[in-house]
Amino acid sequence: MDRETEKITSTSNSQVKRLISLKNKASFRKKEGVFIVEGIKMYKEIPEDRIEAIYIEEKFLELYKNVIKEKYIIVSENVFKQISDTVTPQGILIVVRQQAYKLDEILKKSKKQLFIILDNLQDPGNLGTIIRTAEGAGVSGVIAGKSTVDLYNPKVIRSTMGSVFRVPFIMAENLEEAIDYLKENGVSVYAAHLHGKSYYDNENYNESTAFIIGNESNGVTDKIAAKADKLIRIPMCGKLESLNAAVAAAILMYEAKKKMD
Amino acid sequence: MDRETEKITSTSNSQVKRLISLKNKASFRKKEGVFIVEGIKMYKEIPEDRIEAIYIEEKFLELYKNVIKEKYIIVSENVFKQISDTVTPQGILIVVRQQAYKLDEILKKSKKQLFIILDNLQDPGNLGTIIRTAEGAGVSGVIAGKSTVDLYNPKVIRSTMGSVFRVPFIMAENLEEAIDYLKENGVSVYAAHLHGKSYYDNENYNESTAFIIGNESNGVTDKIAAKADKLIRIPMCGKLESLNAAVAAAILMYEAKKKMD
Repeated sequence: MDRETEKITSTSNSQVKRLISLKNKASFRKKEGVFIVEGIKMYKEIPEDRIEAIYIEEKFLELYKNVIKEKYIIVSENVFKQISDTVTPQGILIVVRQQAYKLDEILKKSKKQLFIILDNLQDPGNLGTIIRTAEGAGVSGVIAGKSTVDLYNPKVIRSTMGSVFRVPFIMAENLEEAIDYLKENGVSVYAAHLHGKSYYDNENYNESTAFIIGNESNGVTDKIAAKADKLIRIPMCGKLESLNAAVAAAILMYEAKKKMD
Repeated sequence: MDRETEKITSTSNSQVKRLISLKNKASFRKKEGVFIVEGIKMYKEIPEDRIEAIYIEEKFLELYKNVIKEKYIIVSENVFKQISDTVTPQGILIVVRQQAYKLDEILKKSKKQLFIILDNLQDPGNLGTIIRTAEGAGVSGVIAGKSTVDLYNPKVIRSTMGSVFRVPFIMAENLEEAIDYLKENGVSVYAAHLHGKSYYDNENYNESTAFIIGNESNGVTDKIAAKADKLIRIPMCGKLESLNAAVAAAILMYEAKKKMD
């Protein structure tokens, strides 16, 4: 098999050490410009030209070798346990190149666009689910400030169910400036806020729209809320303090999608 | 302090063993008719008459003793680690009595009602988030078949953020019969289904409505889908196979809420 270049059995191998750092450290992922993806279903979602390396656990080789089109490296069960982020690993791990998107290029693409802006979102599952829903709602881009959980966190990647390869994601150096830029380009910016005076479904969303979603416990920060054109609210019955962040984002995205279509 | 009855320092104490079983086993929770709740924020949500016992970790005593109104038992740090389900325990654990709800009693309460029916939902976070959203949307009851993850799973309880104490939840012995009963009582039943011919937002929802949400990977089972009056679909852009179950439930509940209000 000329696609098998090597086999790794030692956890002190330098590639293994690199993979563990890629799994655990956002700063290392950023420096290397890559991230880790696990599972055969996710493999099938990865654009071919973004694959850097594939690692297959020995005992899964028979299962995968005819599915995988690229070169791969075989690793022992013990090594795979170290590099995997899951409790029951699926035996395939792919190193994928990050892709940078630019807001100005996205804005040129069409006249009526929908954006999600994330202000200090902390839960990886929420971020992944928001990206997944964003694809469904036809969102042009998800924009996050630096305080939001890292897009390339393995748990985020898993929860996107592959949408991470298709939804443009912008990590804004300065979230306030990014919002200003959207507004200058004709995008109406709404912040989901418990003190919003207008209900979300009273708005028209008939031009380009962006929704700001805040932190799971504290909502949108004051300085980011101040940048919004309007604070809006999702009505709640009962004694609920707030909705889950990914749920709130979904309700807003789908309301706007409906009115924009 | 007459509220402190005892202090437990041994993990072989019989109360500790009971708490560990309550944490891990749905069958034991059912047999005992109680479940476990953790954290001071959740404590404040529990109806007083449903509290059976409170356990406080020694080092949190000063912090909590003036907040807690009931009798409590002090446990050592080592014991608390064993009984807690969280990585960073908050030092307070409460045993709470389960509450049974009856569908016929709920149906008598008002003329126009909204229900969520869960068919083989597996993820505890999804179930908890659905119950939380259901409170916000003013849902009358969440009905689950026996194959759905246990309501009293500690992860479900956490994700409800307290809604578990306020949203009626019915564990149906036979989900098909429960759906028949809803239909006999004038409830229109819609299943969220990838093969749905009608879009969710084309429906009126101007009478009592129930939405069936299926399993995370496989959707609604055929036999349950066959019970629905109509299969509906949430439109999706991109290459997405499906939305997250809690997200789909939220979009449907809020659409119906809007039209029912």
